[in-house]
Amino acid sequence: MGMYDLIYKKKIGGSLTEEEIKFIVNGFTKDEIPDYQMAAFLMAVCLKGMDKSETIALTMAMAHSGEMLDLSAIEGIKADKHSTGGVGDKTSLVLSPMVASLGIPVAKMSGRGLGHTGGTIDKLESFPGFSTSIPTGQFIDNVNRMKMAIVGQTANLAPADKKIYALRDVTATVDNISLIAGSIMSKKIASGADVIVLDVKTGSGAFMKTLEDSTALAEAMVEIGNGVGRETYAVITDMNQPLGRAVGNSIEVAEAIRTLQGNGPEDLLEVSLTLGSYMLLGAKKAGSVEEARKLLKQTITDQSALNKLAEFVRAQGGDDRAVYNTERFPQASIQEEVISDREGYVTRIITDEIGMTSLVLGGGRETKDSVIDLSVGIQIHKKLGDKVKAGESLASLYGNNMDKMKTAKTRYLKAYTIEDAKPDPAKYIYGIVTRDGLTQF
Amino acid sequence: MGMYDLIYKKKIGGSLTEEEIKFIVNGFTKDEIPDYQMAAFLMAVCLKGMDKSETIALTMAMAHSGEMLDLSAIEGIKADKHSTGGVGDKTSLVLSPMVASLGIPVAKMSGRGLGHTGGTIDKLESFPGFSTSIPTGQFIDNVNRMKMAIVGQTANLAPADKKIYALRDVTATVDNISLIAGSIMSKKIASGADVIVLDVKTGSGAFMKTLEDSTALAEAMVEIGNGVGRETYAVITDMNQPLGRAVGNSIEVAEAIRTLQGNGPEDLLEVSLTLGSYMLLGAKKAGSVEEARKLLKQTITDQSALNKLAEFVRAQGGDDRAVYNTERFPQASIQEEVISDREGYVTRIITDEIGMTSLVLGGGRETKDSVIDLSVGIQIHKKLGDKVKAGESLASLYGNNMDKMKTAKTRYLKAYTIEDAKPDPAKYIYGIVTRDGLTQF
Repeated sequence: MGMYDLIYKKKIGGSLTEEEIKFIVNGFTKDEIPDYQMAAFLMAVCLKGMDKSETIALTMAMAHSGEMLDLSAIEGIKADKHSTGGVGDKTSLVLSPMVASLGIPVAKMSGRGLGHTGGTIDKLESFPGFSTSIPTGQFIDNVNRMKMAIVGQTANLAPADKKIYALRDVTATVDNISLIAGSIMSKKIASGADVIVLDVKTGSGAFMKTLEDSTALAEAMVEIGNGVGRETYAVITDMNQPLGRAVGNSIEVAEAIRTLQGNGPEDLLEVSLTLGSYMLLGAKKAGSVEEARKLLKQTITDQSALNKLAEFVRAQGGDDRAVYNTERFPQASIQEEVISDREGYVTRIITDEIGMTSLVLGGGRETKDSVIDLSVGIQIHKKLGDKVKAGESLASLYGNNMDKMKTAKTRYLKAYTIEDAKPDPAKYIYGIVTRDGLTQF
Repeated sequence: MGMYDLIYKKKIGGSLTEEEIKFIVNGFTKDEIPDYQMAAFLMAVCLKGMDKSETIALTMAMAHSGEMLDLSAIEGIKADKHSTGGVGDKTSLVLSPMVASLGIPVAKMSGRGLGHTGGTIDKLESFPGFSTSIPTGQFIDNVNRMKMAIVGQTANLAPADKKIYALRDVTATVDNISLIAGSIMSKKIASGADVIVLDVKTGSGAFMKTLEDSTALAEAMVEIGNGVGRETYAVITDMNQPLGRAVGNSIEVAEAIRTLQGNGPEDLLEVSLTLGSYMLLGAKKAGSVEEARKLLKQTITDQSALNKLAEFVRAQGGDDRAVYNTERFPQASIQEEVISDREGYVTRIITDEIGMTSLVLGGGRETKDSVIDLSVGIQIHKKLGDKVKAGESLASLYGNNMDKMKTAKTRYLKAYTIEDAKPDPAKYIYGIVTRDGLTQF
C-alpha cells in the first residue's frame, strides 16, 4: 500500500478500506506521509466525498492516534455535550451543573477558544483561583464524588486531528462534512463519554450558515457516534443572533448563573433544557424528553444546579462566592452604549460581527498566544424582532481601552439591520437528530 | 490575493484570471507558496478542470518562469517537433535531417530520457565524440549555416514546469489534460520555435492509452500553441506496438539511418513523413501535405537527408563515418532470440513491457542518475498481424549481462499475445489536429 495509490483511488471516487484510512492517518501523524501528499488527498476527499464507513474509519483512526481517556473508573453513564461554536454560547455552564445535580456524571474535557470569545475553559477562569488543569486522578475522583469536573484538553487528545486540521486550514479543505464530523467526533470519542449530545449551530454566526449544511453535519456526527457505540444525539439550534444577551467571558458566566437562578434569557434556557434533556435520556435518567425537562427545571427551582456549580468551582480551587455575587468577577473600566440612529425593528444581526466586536474589545484570541481580557464583553439590549427607538441603546459594551472601544462600537452598530416591518419571531431550535433520524421543529 | 483564496476558487469550480495564475506559478517557483498548498490546488485542478484561457495562462507563466530561448538570430521560419513519448520512437532522427535538407531551420532542444529508452540526446551520443552541450552562439551559427542543430535542454528552461511536475508526480495529479498540455507546451514555447508539430502517441505504450484522451490532449496543445501565436499541429499516431523494429539507443539510430537510405520500416517512414509534412506546411515550404510529402521523399531518394545527418553529426563533434557504417556504433556482446512457443498471429503487444525489456537490458534510466548502455536493445522480427510459427524468433535481444538477458527474454515473451485469428491491419495514424480542428483518419 502506498500513499500515491490511495490519493489516486480517492481522486477517481473510490471508497477506501478501514486499513487504508488507518495507513493514511497513522502515516501522516508520524510524519511518514508528507504534507503535500496529505493536502492532495484532503482536496480529493473534499471533491469526491467519503461514505459512512470511510468517515467512521477516519474518526476512529484519529481518535486512536493519541490518548483515549479511560472513564471506566467513573460510576454510571457518562454524558457529554459539544457545541459546534457560536456567539454567546454558554450552555455548558448552564446544563452541566443541572445534569450533574441530578446524579449524571459530567466528566468534561473542553478546549480554549480561538476567535471571537474564549472557550468554556477560559470562561471558567473568571472564577478567581479556578484551575482547569487538575490531574486525571483528581478529575475522576471529583466526578465520582460530586458528578462534575471540567478540565482543559490534554495535548495528546487526537493529535492526528490537530495535525490534519492545521493542514486543512491552509489548503481550503475545511468545508467537507466527513472531515468536519470526523474532527469533532474523534475528540469526543477519545474523551470517553458514553452519551454525546451535540449542539449544531446554524445561521449567520455559525460555522454552518445554512440549515441544510447544519443538518447534514448533525446527521453525519450522529451516524458516527452511534456507529461506534456511543449514544449520540444532535440538536440543531439557532445562531442567527447571539445566544442569550451576554457575549464575552465573565459576563457570560454571570448570565449562566442568572439562568440557574431562574432569571436567564428564554433562548439560553430553552437550548440548555433541550440539550440537557437528551443527556438525561441517553443516561437513562428519564424515559422521555418531557420527564427530563421537568427534572431539569426542578434543579433551577430548588437551586440544586446553582449549588452544584458552586461545589464544582470550589473543588477546582475557584472562589465559589462569585456564584452568589458576580461582582467578584473581573470588571471592565469603561462602559459605552451602542446607540441606534433610527427607529424600527431589529430584522437582522450579522452574528459573526458581534463576536468580532467582543474580540476587538479583548475578549477573544486573534492568535493562539493572545491573552484574553476576561472582564470585557457585551450586554445586548435589543435582539431580533425587538422594537428600537432612535437614540436607544442596542447594547452596552465593556472594555478597558478607549481606542478599541471606538472600533467596537462602530462594528457593533454595523452588524444590525433595523427596518420598519416587524419580522417573524426568532426560532431557537430547528430540529433533533437521533439514531432514528431527523425530527424538524 | 492569497493562495488560500485561489485554491478555494478552483475548488468550487471558478475560473482563475491570468494574474491569479501568474501569482500561483511565480509564487511556487520562488518557494513562496508551499508544496502542500500547491498540491491541494493541483488536485482541485484535476477534479474541476481549467478552461482554455486558464490553460494558456498556465502555459505562458511556466514558459516565462525561466530562460526564453531567443531564436531571432536564425533566418527563416523555425520548425520543431515534439513527441509525447513512445517505444522505438526515433522520428526526430529521421525527420530533422529531411526537413533541414530542404532549407527549413531545425533548432532543437531535446531532453534526456527517463524510463524505458533514452531520449534523442542520449541516442545521438551513439556517435562517438558527439556533443549535445554546445554553446548557444554555436548552436545558432550551426542552424544558420546548415539548418540543423540539436542540443540538450538548459536547466533553466521552464523551471516552474519542472518543479510542478515533480509535485504532480508524487500527488497523483499527473493525468489532467490542461496540466499535461501546459507542461509540454511551456517547454516548447520557451524553446523558441515558430512552428510546432506534436506527435501525440496513443495506445498501450503511450502516456495516453485511449484515442479519446490522446485527441483531447492534441486539441488542448494545438489550442495553446495557436493561442499564443505559434503555428501548431498535432498528429495522433499509434503506440499499440513499438514504432519501427528497433528499440534501444544506437540500434534506433541505425534504423533511422536505414530509413534515410530508403530501407526503413513502413510505419516509421509514414509517421516521419506525416510529421515532417506539417513542419514544411507551417514553414511555408509547401502549400499542401501532398507537395510536402513529395519534397520529403525526394530527400531520401537523392540522399540529401542522409548527408545532412552526417553534416550535422560532424558539426557537433561526432564521428560521421558511423552514418555510412553503423558498425562503428557501440556493439553489445550477447545476442539472444525470444522464441515463440506457439503458432498464430501476433494480436496484441503490451508495448510498455517492450520498453521495460529494453530498460532491463540497460538501455533506459531507472533513476535520473542511471547510466545508459547505448549498445543494448531489441531488434523486433514480429509485429502486430505478423504470422508466427512455433520456434520462430519474435525478436533478437542485444545485451552485455546474462542475468539481465534472462529477465528481459521472459518479459518480452509475456508482452506478446499470439492467437489463431488474423487481426485487422495495424493503423499508423489516427488523426490530425490543426487550428481548424480534428481530421480523423
